[in-house]
Amino acid sequence: MRVEQTRGETVEVWHEVHVAVVDAFGRVVAGAGDPALVTFWRSAAKPFQALPLVEDGAADHFGLTSEELALACASHSSEPEQVARVRELLAKIGCSERDLLCGPHPPLSERVARDYATRGLALTAVYSNCSGKHAAMLALARHHDWPTAFYTRLEHPVQQRCLDAVSRWTEVPRDAIQTAVDGCGVVCFGLPLKRMALAYVRLGGAGEDGALGVNQPAAPPASGAASRIVAAMLRHPDLIAGAGRPCTELMRAHPGRVIAKVGAEGVYCALLVREGLGVALKVSDGHGTAAVLALGAVLTELGLGPHPAALAARPIVNTRGETVGELRVHGGLERYPGADGQRGGGRQGAAR
Amino acid sequence: MRVEQTRGETVEVWHEVHVAVVDAFGRVVAGAGDPALVTFWRSAAKPFQALPLVEDGAADHFGLTSEELALACASHSSEPEQVARVRELLAKIGCSERDLLCGPHPPLSERVARDYATRGLALTAVYSNCSGKHAAMLALARHHDWPTAFYTRLEHPVQQRCLDAVSRWTEVPRDAIQTAVDGCGVVCFGLPLKRMALAYVRLGGAGEDGALGVNQPAAPPASGAASRIVAAMLRHPDLIAGAGRPCTELMRAHPGRVIAKVGAEGVYCALLVREGLGVALKVSDGHGTAAVLALGAVLTELGLGPHPAALAARPIVNTRGETVGELRVHGGLERYPGADGQRGGGRQGAAR
Repeated sequence: MRVEQTRGETVEVWHEVHVAVVDAFGRVVAGAGDPALVTFWRSAAKPFQALPLVEDGAADHFGLTSEELALACASHSSEPEQVARVRELLAKIGCSERDLLCGPHPPLSERVARDYATRGLALTAVYSNCSGKHAAMLALARHHDWPTAFYTRLEHPVQQRCLDAVSRWTEVPRDAIQTAVDGCGVVCFGLPLKRMALAYVRLGGAGEDGALGVNQPAAPPASGAASRIVAAMLRHPDLIAGAGRPCTELMRAHPGRVIAKVGAEGVYCALLVREGLGVALKVSDGHGTAAVLALGAVLTELGLGPHPAALAARPIVNTRGETVGELRVHGGLERYPGADGQRGGGRQGAAR
Repeated sequence: MRVEQTRGETVEVWHEVHVAVVDAFGRVVAGAGDPALVTFWRSAAKPFQALPLVEDGAADHFGLTSEELALACASHSSEPEQVARVRELLAKIGCSERDLLCGPHPPLSERVARDYATRGLALTAVYSNCSGKHAAMLALARHHDWPTAFYTRLEHPVQQRCLDAVSRWTEVPRDAIQTAVDGCGVVCFGLPLKRMALAYVRLGGAGEDGALGVNQPAAPPASGAASRIVAAMLRHPDLIAGAGRPCTELMRAHPGRVIAKVGAEGVYCALLVREGLGVALKVSDGHGTAAVLALGAVLTELGLGPHPAALAARPIVNTRGETVGELRVHGGLERYPGADGQRGGGRQGAAR
């Protein structure tokens, strides 16, 4: 699968896409490129970095709302009300913006970025798209009476606890998970796409409607926590990213049916709630728009569509405003044989 | 050859690079990926779009300076003096900014872009990085008494004349050259990388020092015009791009030894004057910085170096200012057998 950019009749630029689709039995049922490609999960890991908050009782201890849980899983747009909610969360756990160690950056929403630039707003740490996740990590530290200082470091118990969660939900042993420093300063996790997809479908296996539970050998033990995370994300698409951004627009267009979570450098993950499928994809050159278009095409193939404009092929326009080409998806998923048969079938074998 | 972006010890993103290196005999002596890849030449075609200006006598007719010829070949940074020179050129040919059909865009130099944004400068057509080329096209029209209106269209004699020049220098038949609309609105040309490299080395074969002339079967007929274009570009690296930009910094670092010309969407071409080699490369995903790094690596392999910082591997820094990885070249050129032997040898055959 590729995302192609044409000029006239010619393909001028192309972006290679690697995809893994895993079903509720943990089987890699479809994919493209290399479904076992190892890459960093980046922000698409956030739901799993948020799980310890619920599993360990911190969410109950601090009375966290579903909005706050959604923001813990978000790459938000730094919209004023999103930032205000993170500030409230910090106050609730007895922390302040000064405790946040995420670096500042222009808002991921161009509209919000322009607005703040026009107004000369100082972009502090709480405006980071990851500030909800960082506040949640501080909440976890507070709950366990761990120091809040240096909570971003690999050796800090917060990051060790996140690594545990990632290992458990992906079934990749801790020492087989590659670690590095994420864009916001916390630990990020490198593992195969098919294991990311497995984790997403397992998240859904523990979903609140329970529909997938019947045939869910992939569901992990502590499903109550996952249920709360899934419910929070499904309930607040507006907090997961922001107005106009693909995660939010996609989830709004298909209420209760999909969780979509972007990661930096061309990563996208999704859970198809009703279909019981987990999706993970990576554009090898890190092109973000290509990843969005690829996600739209994959979800359409898997039965979810049509999608809003934020996920559609788009014209390439030159400096004169002339449409000179198009950015579009070429190719599709390969269905792996054995997917309808016994567990572990298929070219790529089981995700586990 | 790839340009890799690491995070920690892991390659997180990679950009595929296709390269053709052609010697003064027209042989493809080295390369990477697919040296026959067909793509658009974009702004790296500018020297060949400028050639008719000299060949047809327009440059003499209007008394164009070497600075003005250099700007005709440039993707300039919209620096104040570059823009002033284009305005002078327009006045010299009896045209005005209103005749320019290139679309406006933020200057390619971030420094200049920031400066103009701060000052609220209105970015009109003359600030386009292509305004020198457009003014030169208007000069060609004026010289031939062709209409200046709609000079950007494929059917206009200016574009037909440029197509002729491209066909002649690349030895690709006119009807085998793909055409489309460039970023600035004129015609752009799609052809194999190895033919782009051939055209660049032929440009050098007609160079003013004549050193390459002895064994230059690849040199085309009208070498006097090429000599003036090459001399203008070598003399004014500061006008070919701008301060801090790779073309300019590279040419400044190796005075008289190299012409480097960027094209949009990951294209780069170069002429190694002393070595008698033409280079054309394309990053398939269009990544501009990857193309710069690849060019630096290719030129180093071909004996030209060391390069200024603008062409060097660079750290990847997160929002906290921490270095989390590196952008660097992986792999190198493949030398094709037969390159030292008879003409037409090598895996890829002759460029022609």
